[in-house]
Amino acid sequence: MIFMGNDYSEGAAPQILEALVRTNMEQTEGYGTDEHCMHAAELIKETLGRDDVDIHFIVGGTQTNITVIASILRPFEAVIAPETGHICRHETGGVEATGHKIVHMRTNDGKLRAEQVEEAVLFHTDEHFVKPRMVYISQPTELGTMYSLEEIKAIRAMCLKYGLYLYIDGARLAVGLTNSATDFDIKDIPELCDVFYLGGTKIGMLFGEAIVIINDKLKPDFRFMIKHCGAMLAKARLLGVQFEAMFKDKGKLYYELGSHANAMADKLRAGLDELGFQFAVDSPTNQIFIRVSDAQVKKLAEDVIYEPDGTLDPGYQRIRFCTSWATPEEDIDKLLEILKEVKKVG
Amino acid sequence: MIFMGNDYSEGAAPQILEALVRTNMEQTEGYGTDEHCMHAAELIKETLGRDDVDIHFIVGGTQTNITVIASILRPFEAVIAPETGHICRHETGGVEATGHKIVHMRTNDGKLRAEQVEEAVLFHTDEHFVKPRMVYISQPTELGTMYSLEEIKAIRAMCLKYGLYLYIDGARLAVGLTNSATDFDIKDIPELCDVFYLGGTKIGMLFGEAIVIINDKLKPDFRFMIKHCGAMLAKARLLGVQFEAMFKDKGKLYYELGSHANAMADKLRAGLDELGFQFAVDSPTNQIFIRVSDAQVKKLAEDVIYEPDGTLDPGYQRIRFCTSWATPEEDIDKLLEILKEVKKVG
Amino acid sequence: MIFMGNDYSEGAAPQILEALVRTNMEQTEGYGTDEHCMHAAELIKETLGRDDVDIHFIVGGTQTNITVIASILRPFEAVIAPETGHICRHETGGVEATGHKIVHMRTNDGKLRAEQVEEAVLFHTDEHFVKPRMVYISQPTELGTMYSLEEIKAIRAMCLKYGLYLYIDGARLAVGLTNSATDFDIKDIPELCDVFYLGGTKIGMLFGEAIVIINDKLKPDFRFMIKHCGAMLAKARLLGVQFEAMFKDKGKLYYELGSHANAMADKLRAGLDELGFQFAVDSPTNQIFIRVSDAQVKKLAEDVIYEPDGTLDPGYQRIRFCTSWATPEEDIDKLLEILKEVKKVG
Amino acid sequence: MIFMGNDYSEGAAPQILEALVRTNMEQTEGYGTDEHCMHAAELIKETLGRDDVDIHFIVGGTQTNITVIASILRPFEAVIAPETGHICRHETGGVEATGHKIVHMRTNDGKLRAEQVEEAVLFHTDEHFVKPRMVYISQPTELGTMYSLEEIKAIRAMCLKYGLYLYIDGARLAVGLTNSATDFDIKDIPELCDVFYLGGTKIGMLFGEAIVIINDKLKPDFRFMIKHCGAMLAKARLLGVQFEAMFKDKGKLYYELGSHANAMADKLRAGLDELGFQFAVDSPTNQIFIRVSDAQVKKLAEDVIYEPDGTLDPGYQRIRFCTSWATPEEDIDKLLEILKEVKKVG
Repeated sequence: MIFMGNDYSEGAAPQILEALVRTNMEQTEGYGTDEHCMHAAELIKETLGRDDVDIHFIVGGTQTNITVIASILRPFEAVIAPETGHICRHETGGVEATGHKIVHMRTNDGKLRAEQVEEAVLFHTDEHFVKPRMVYISQPTELGTMYSLEEIKAIRAMCLKYGLYLYIDGARLAVGLTNSATDFDIKDIPELCDVFYLGGTKIGMLFGEAIVIINDKLKPDFRFMIKHCGAMLAKARLLGVQFEAMFKDKGKLYYELGSHANAMADKLRAGLDELGFQFAVDSPTNQIFIRVSDAQVKKLAEDVIYEPDGTLDPGYQRIRFCTSWATPEEDIDKLLEILKEVKKVG
Repeated sequence: MIFMGNDYSEGAAPQILEALVRTNMEQTEGYGTDEHCMHAAELIKETLGRDDVDIHFIVGGTQTNITVIASILRPFEAVIAPETGHICRHETGGVEATGHKIVHMRTNDGKLRAEQVEEAVLFHTDEHFVKPRMVYISQPTELGTMYSLEEIKAIRAMCLKYGLYLYIDGARLAVGLTNSATDFDIKDIPELCDVFYLGGTKIGMLFGEAIVIINDKLKPDFRFMIKHCGAMLAKARLLGVQFEAMFKDKGKLYYELGSHANAMADKLRAGLDELGFQFAVDSPTNQIFIRVSDAQVKKLAEDVIYEPDGTLDPGYQRIRFCTSWATPEEDIDKLLEILKEVKKVG
Repeated sequence: MIFMGNDYSEGAAPQILEALVRTNMEQTEGYGTDEHCMHAAELIKETLGRDDVDIHFIVGGTQTNITVIASILRPFEAVIAPETGHICRHETGGVEATGHKIVHMRTNDGKLRAEQVEEAVLFHTDEHFVKPRMVYISQPTELGTMYSLEEIKAIRAMCLKYGLYLYIDGARLAVGLTNSATDFDIKDIPELCDVFYLGGTKIGMLFGEAIVIINDKLKPDFRFMIKHCGAMLAKARLLGVQFEAMFKDKGKLYYELGSHANAMADKLRAGLDELGFQFAVDSPTNQIFIRVSDAQVKKLAEDVIYEPDGTLDPGYQRIRFCTSWATPEEDIDKLLEILKEVKKVG
Repeated sequence: MIFMGNDYSEGAAPQILEALVRTNMEQTEGYGTDEHCMHAAELIKETLGRDDVDIHFIVGGTQTNITVIASILRPFEAVIAPETGHICRHETGGVEATGHKIVHMRTNDGKLRAEQVEEAVLFHTDEHFVKPRMVYISQPTELGTMYSLEEIKAIRAMCLKYGLYLYIDGARLAVGLTNSATDFDIKDIPELCDVFYLGGTKIGMLFGEAIVIINDKLKPDFRFMIKHCGAMLAKARLLGVQFEAMFKDKGKLYYELGSHANAMADKLRAGLDELGFQFAVDSPTNQIFIRVSDAQVKKLAEDVIYEPDGTLDPGYQRIRFCTSWATPEEDIDKLLEILKEVKKVG
């Protein structure tokens, strides 16, 4: 079977695993106060070119979103998000569990528009409504699409106009920084938002996300929030060790792994295009959504693990292929061979 | 420096690390539906001699406590716990964050008494009070003390009398099953409570706790709760792989690691006794609490990392030594040499 | 000024006020265990023709919705509601504050369709999503529209198919039971849902809503929930006294007050129609939404207090007139005179 | 039967009822933005001698406590309270429902000591604990005892030392300001704390509490919190009307009603003393706790409704008599006659 279901099906990239094995018997304090965590934070700051940000390491993305959002909002405040956002759909109400409404905004491509931020704010007129106080977006989005620098700047301007914080979910940011549509650098991000995170889980770490808090108002007591949300790892140095490996040499490995996922996706995309498949979303990143007939899906499923993504018009489905840091080039070749046969099914 | 601060300062036991390395590039589904998780669950069931329990794997202990308690209680229901319980003190209000009051009961030795369960129930007379619905205990306790089979049976009987669920926190259960005071077997536990967990983090896993749900009423939709609480690991097979290593051959490794921690503690305890140190708690497990003078602490701190545990009478402190699966016997020898000098300080 | 802004601008209907004055110096137990509450519950049961339901009295509608929903759902469970529902917009995240997501469904007329219930259920496929477990509708809706018996039966059938509870918000149920579109009786309601409430605040009580729990599974410990949600009134007999006045003689006063609000609305509606105003919603109840130009609104505002309800196309607004139990017929006459002039503005 | 069970058994004081009847058919905006609420707030400010405080009206005490505390604390922050505090025992976990732990401090007389504030703060050393951020006390306490000005100043000083907010629950503040132990004036209170409330329910209003926010940091968006907590009354002018009656002429009625309750209690206390009853608590206010034998209780219960308050040593109980604004002097006379007989039972 060719596995194209997601980008978290393997363990860790070899360099990361090696670091974990090498440091395994070191004795360190727990909970993130160890040297590896400190050093990893320094490396990330260096990569970002910013000394004045706070870095915190957390195991997973849902935890990260819950902790960041719950830390920032007062009880009656809400977060605005595109309806396809991870916090809207795939977190089993984790954000609402902390007492906050998510204001869902409609989207076809996974992206929130600056005008929608304004629309949401103006809809909530008084104390009978929740008060929007934060905007959540992902780069790239859950549909693999990308915000341009211009678009994020427009959202940011709207946030500043209405006193909202901007939070960028970077679960796949490594991929977002290294694809053909990328038009800004990692160093630009702290200028664009109040808080974001650098995802590790989906780019070759066993687990781990690095929260970067830029806005000084959001910094105090964040470690209390992590613990309060059950998100403080006992052996937290495992996070530090992995991020050290990822971010030494200014994020070299982080960029390499992201680039590889994109290169494999580009190759697959070109092949799909050549074979005449129809793209369901115009994504330049490692998530590729295509429209296929039920019969084609049946054929495909014999040899490939893909991600189903709902029914389109009767008889047609949307499916996702997801390349990753670990995808071997020969898997793309094999997959394209298989797809050639699938295409014939019609 | 000799490190005796806690039992989670290293990475993983070699057998567990080896299993992680060996399976690193396997491709599996995420979130706990993979073969390793399934297999690990089977091995645990076999060790428990019970086919009819549900097993779930979670990264950490605080998360586990939050998820289990929030899953069971209705909003106005409360959990009774000894005031030294992990959920009372060391979880930054994580349980309260899910909306539930913890009814703290006084204790000197970390143990809850059956009569205290009754006392707590009778205190809460009507709908103006929270309604106790669950009892939380740990084996061994946070003070290293042990419940006898008799004592747990008495608590259980009181729970049955008043319609309470019994939950046993087994963060250090491996140590609890293999010390000189142990008077029941792992197979007895499902008879004694409604839900418990087998801790991995503090007994040589990188991370990981295995929740065992015995009571059928508590089983439905538990995976929703895990995700809702932000506690579902993407690469959950890492939990499965580690628990497979721990529980193959009926928990051989789990028992070995627990026994080692206890053996090192026994040796240290005997040495402390011989040197004339005063024990602050009568613990038969891997956490040893002694009473030392401020001057002794100062001397000790030159060579040993210990855990401070508060001031006793003026001039005297309580400190904790904690042995683990990883403690080398020579560290105990060295520590006793150092303590001989410390004792002279008076 | 003519006041047509809402149906809760006055105090209590005279009969209700009289009952409060008459019983003022009685001494009763607090919190809802007094004779008046008991008696009022009996009267409501009699009116419903059901002896096997539980009745609870609460001060306000938002509290009622919060308490009912939080009582029923497990933490990861969600409630499906039309996006115009009171819980979606006008409760400042009160339901989310209890940890639950509301699944908003699109609607133009304030009504949820049975097919939308199914759509919502099927969208939430597994434990990465919240689990819909309850449907919330209002009769009449927040837009003044009415569900037919057929439509509620269809929703109910869908609920039964998918294991969902049906909850009917009856903030304005008195009006819902006495208008030209009403096609079922108060005695039908317990057959149609699991829980509903009879609103008092908007039909001439100082405050007060009566929750009726039909489904036995939802009955236990509901008083704990009321207190837990801060919704238990100390002098709860004030609720009992008011509901006694409302429901003696099988709800005579309740029906009379509802009928009056509808009669006044019917007269106003006929007049508006005759004057050529355009209705923005097709409502047969006491909330009337019309489309008016900005200039017309300006003119109207000189003499009438109405409820603004957003901008339609540029230059046009939607406004609401709301009649009530207290609306004098001469106010309708005067309002129609004023509207004649307003209409001329164009 | 003589009713001495509590101070909320009747409806409203005549002057308050009259105001409600008089204004019943006025038409006002809802939710607290009407003229009566505005005016009542002005009257309270005048009584306090402070123009710079924010006033909000809420129906009940539990709601008030929940709303105030949830408004102030971040998720991981906790409130310190004496274990007999209303929020600790009689609110069915309402505060915990908002996610916050209450740190219970031991007390025999219902009063928190300044040293206990420090003790609580120092116990919570780092991010593994909740972070105390607020102190809750009541004046008078739930046991009828009183803080002296000195004692509150000491608590306040400790709060300032450790960055804690001080909140005073004034459910019975009218009684607290008019008893023999009172040593400060209503105008002193804003100097002593950050937020407090003036209770109405227990001093002759149908319902209603007036929150006074002194600290500017706690003022923003409080109305959002009220609505979010389900605590915003639709016909909120009922609160305004009642507080207007209470606080016109600088709180004349408020003081009168409080004084009456105290005068009746003083008379009862003197009588009890003369009869040789043993006081279980040294209370100078309208709650009187005495120690009586089981046989005496049995006798008493034939003619008097009192509040049971637990078992003391075997054969002896603690009971409470509670006088109120409404207690007729002849009821005290009759009660003392009855008690004379009860005393004989021994």
